[in-house]
Amino acid sequence: MPNNLTDLVAELALANRILAHEGALDAFGHVSVRHPADPGRYLLSRSRSPQLVEPTDILEYTLDSEPLKRAKMPLYAERVIHGCIYQARSDVMAVCHHHAAAVLPFCVAGKPIVPVSHLGAAIGEETPFWDQHDEFGDTNLLVVKQDEGHSLARALGHHSVVLMKHHGATVVGGGLKELVSRSIFLCQNAEYQMHAHMLGTPQPLHRGEIELAGGINLLPGVIERTWEYWSMRLKAARALPPPAGSKRKKRR
Amino acid sequence: MPNNLTDLVAELALANRILAHEGALDAFGHVSVRHPADPGRYLLSRSRSPQLVEPTDILEYTLDSEPLKRAKMPLYAERVIHGCIYQARSDVMAVCHHHAAAVLPFCVAGKPIVPVSHLGAAIGEETPFWDQHDEFGDTNLLVVKQDEGHSLARALGHHSVVLMKHHGATVVGGGLKELVSRSIFLCQNAEYQMHAHMLGTPQPLHRGEIELAGGINLLPGVIERTWEYWSMRLKAARALPPPAGSKRKKRR
Amino acid sequence: MPNNLTDLVAELALANRILAHEGALDAFGHVSVRHPADPGRYLLSRSRSPQLVEPTDILEYTLDSEPLKRAKMPLYAERVIHGCIYQARSDVMAVCHHHAAAVLPFCVAGKPIVPVSHLGAAIGEETPFWDQHDEFGDTNLLVVKQDEGHSLARALGHHSVVLMKHHGATVVGGGLKELVSRSIFLCQNAEYQMHAHMLGTPQPLHRGEIELAGGINLLPGVIERTWEYWSMRLKAARALPPPAGSKRKKRR
Amino acid sequence: MPNNLTDLVAELALANRILAHEGALDAFGHVSVRHPADPGRYLLSRSRSPQLVEPTDILEYTLDSEPLKRAKMPLYAERVIHGCIYQARSDVMAVCHHHAAAVLPFCVAGKPIVPVSHLGAAIGEETPFWDQHDEFGDTNLLVVKQDEGHSLARALGHHSVVLMKHHGATVVGGGLKELVSRSIFLCQNAEYQMHAHMLGTPQPLHRGEIELAGGINLLPGVIERTWEYWSMRLKAARALPPPAGSKRKKRR
Repeated sequence: MPNNLTDLVAELALANRILAHEGALDAFGHVSVRHPADPGRYLLSRSRSPQLVEPTDILEYTLDSEPLKRAKMPLYAERVIHGCIYQARSDVMAVCHHHAAAVLPFCVAGKPIVPVSHLGAAIGEETPFWDQHDEFGDTNLLVVKQDEGHSLARALGHHSVVLMKHHGATVVGGGLKELVSRSIFLCQNAEYQMHAHMLGTPQPLHRGEIELAGGINLLPGVIERTWEYWSMRLKAARALPPPAGSKRKKRR
Repeated sequence: MPNNLTDLVAELALANRILAHEGALDAFGHVSVRHPADPGRYLLSRSRSPQLVEPTDILEYTLDSEPLKRAKMPLYAERVIHGCIYQARSDVMAVCHHHAAAVLPFCVAGKPIVPVSHLGAAIGEETPFWDQHDEFGDTNLLVVKQDEGHSLARALGHHSVVLMKHHGATVVGGGLKELVSRSIFLCQNAEYQMHAHMLGTPQPLHRGEIELAGGINLLPGVIERTWEYWSMRLKAARALPPPAGSKRKKRR
Repeated sequence: MPNNLTDLVAELALANRILAHEGALDAFGHVSVRHPADPGRYLLSRSRSPQLVEPTDILEYTLDSEPLKRAKMPLYAERVIHGCIYQARSDVMAVCHHHAAAVLPFCVAGKPIVPVSHLGAAIGEETPFWDQHDEFGDTNLLVVKQDEGHSLARALGHHSVVLMKHHGATVVGGGLKELVSRSIFLCQNAEYQMHAHMLGTPQPLHRGEIELAGGINLLPGVIERTWEYWSMRLKAARALPPPAGSKRKKRR
Repeated sequence: MPNNLTDLVAELALANRILAHEGALDAFGHVSVRHPADPGRYLLSRSRSPQLVEPTDILEYTLDSEPLKRAKMPLYAERVIHGCIYQARSDVMAVCHHHAAAVLPFCVAGKPIVPVSHLGAAIGEETPFWDQHDEFGDTNLLVVKQDEGHSLARALGHHSVVLMKHHGATVVGGGLKELVSRSIFLCQNAEYQMHAHMLGTPQPLHRGEIELAGGINLLPGVIERTWEYWSMRLKAARALPPPAGSKRKKRR
């Protein structure tokens, strides 16, 4: 991850758009990164669909999920997801919350996603389930209170993915590129697992395989290849974010 | 919703194209809005695939579904769906009838769609079923007579969605943007529910959750975010409608 | 259908590309139309993927499926499908043979497609099955001999669609636009029917409904609306055929 | 296949992009061809997503999978798949390893893909299964050691496709165009077979049909038609590789 803040902000905008273009995010969902110089802050866009995020949309937040500068524009309602996880997990440098179509059927049926392919091993051996109703009863299912965020962070524990009943998933990573890969591989793995049910019983990797294959998306050859590929696809769709130094486009 | 008629007509054309681009409408289906100044009229395009609707295609109808000015161009055969619902439901400001691919399997199997995700709660606790055959025997399944329209409106009752056996769905809203969100969330919810059957049993939201989450798509931060997102996708596909003041393009 | 040959050839090229763009045809499949002035001839492209067919590719054939002018370019191997059906069915003015992805699972499982939606009624009450193996034993499954073509035409009988085991489907129409609609509605109906199996048991239309709804795609308002819509989608994809009078593009 | 090396390299770059564009390859997977003049060498890109491969990326390898000229850029980790198969099978002129979404559910459920359509016969009667765990215990599932490559080649035997548990498939051909067709037809056949499970039991071709239909994709009329079609789709997506003689584009 870049140490330079401008570069990191540009990479975060790009990560937003890659995840939207690859189907992990849609109108909703958000991606954040911990501040490279101050572990007590994180960077996240103002409330905006990820496909549209530009570097100038990115704001700084404390771990209480308050913006450092009082902003006039609307903010994501569920930003406590990010703040609470950064508080609980010092190893986490990036967080993505999403409602990917590949993952939702598992959230609806209450079935865990397990690694069934070598790339899917990136999600780890277990994806714990969190049902907001268990602790908070009837809500609108948005994670907006600090208590809700802390509860979700506890359910995540030391894992890399937590599934949210009737809602979606939250994924964490040791860096932005790792997070992007894991989020996309989670969706692919979920799709394979779901379709394998048509043919018989999906068979998860052996425990030792999960450990060994879990790091494939961190291999330098792999991380650069996927990043180049997803960026190229975004470019071909003319959907790259504007460069970091450019002025905000006027909205019509 | 805009009070200004020109702006509302432009928004209706945009709603047509958003719903087509997001897969709720295809060659068929139609979207209407109640007249902002006269609750006894509604606005609807002439017969045309929604993806092609321009502001100049939009006509005014009485609640008997007669055009105010006798038109030479063909009109939608099923416009009584709109008129009859506006008669029965003074709270309804916008109506969409569609044959979305995500919804049809439910109409074919005769199974209700139930809210299984927080955004899906926008459809309400129950989606009643209407089978034209029950009351009218063998027909071509198009809803073209006043009696058929009134029967459908009765089946809808105070709900937000009515499923039509072997045919499609009709969705209502308190405004155009609410309608557009609900129609798209209905499709997504249907897809999640259908796919969850591969994994086990889809589990609906708790009743209290449905009530609370039902309003998410009315939150100002959400309604603007989704509208911006869907409009951007339309623009990226170069499929925005021409501006309201522009002349009708000659058809070749 | 245009009586003018130039216009009909242009319409046939357009029909090829619409069917390819809407997913009924891919690298394979072909569409023909009976000659408007001579019922003993039909028009069909030289061997070429339908998405690429231009008016200059269209040749005339006798009902024995011999080209009127000896052509140097390769011809479709399976053109007897067209000739044999035109011989057997004087009411048929257009024929499409395809391997659509929505239809193949039925050809693989040996299950009939039945009309489950009002638009799907265009396929008629029954889609007979033809297994080339029954009469001809082991073949490469291509329908290339006159005997094979006649056998397929017998299986089609007076129906509108015949399913071909392990192979695809052949669809007929009283005109090109009717054929195009029926081919596309067949694919949509197949998809709805297949997905309904995830939810329960697909329920076909009542017999009387099939008869009445079967003609919807012949209603003037419908046939023009769908043709305009599918053409617009082709145009938006910059995939319209060159005009009939233009010279063949040199291939690089 | 071209004997001229420049033309063959151009064809290999094109094959990479066709397979990526048709969904057989994504960020991962690779395609090689045996050197036309020296059966002891093969051509394969440096480590790069296939959609991005340019003629200048293509390097020569010995059958031990060592590059002839020591390269500074990263190489595919799994290139032993290619070398070991070229050693074992003198009839094989081209190899593709991929993780296609249509194939993965079979690799996850441990179920073989069998030819269920006439084009699917290109895969042959049987697709043997290889589970790296059987011989090598816990690994990261990448095929990187000579022993692993030889084991995979043994599992392939005299077949055309080998399925790799939790991983993907490896496909071979007597030439590049045959390989491309077989890889794409494998994906389509897998999708038909999987979906047929929703309807009943997928029925494979008769053994004699498999033999006869297996050669369809080698018919001159077919091989040229598919190649033209897939190239046209790539061109329409503005994704053709740069010509063989052009300089490498600077990466930004």
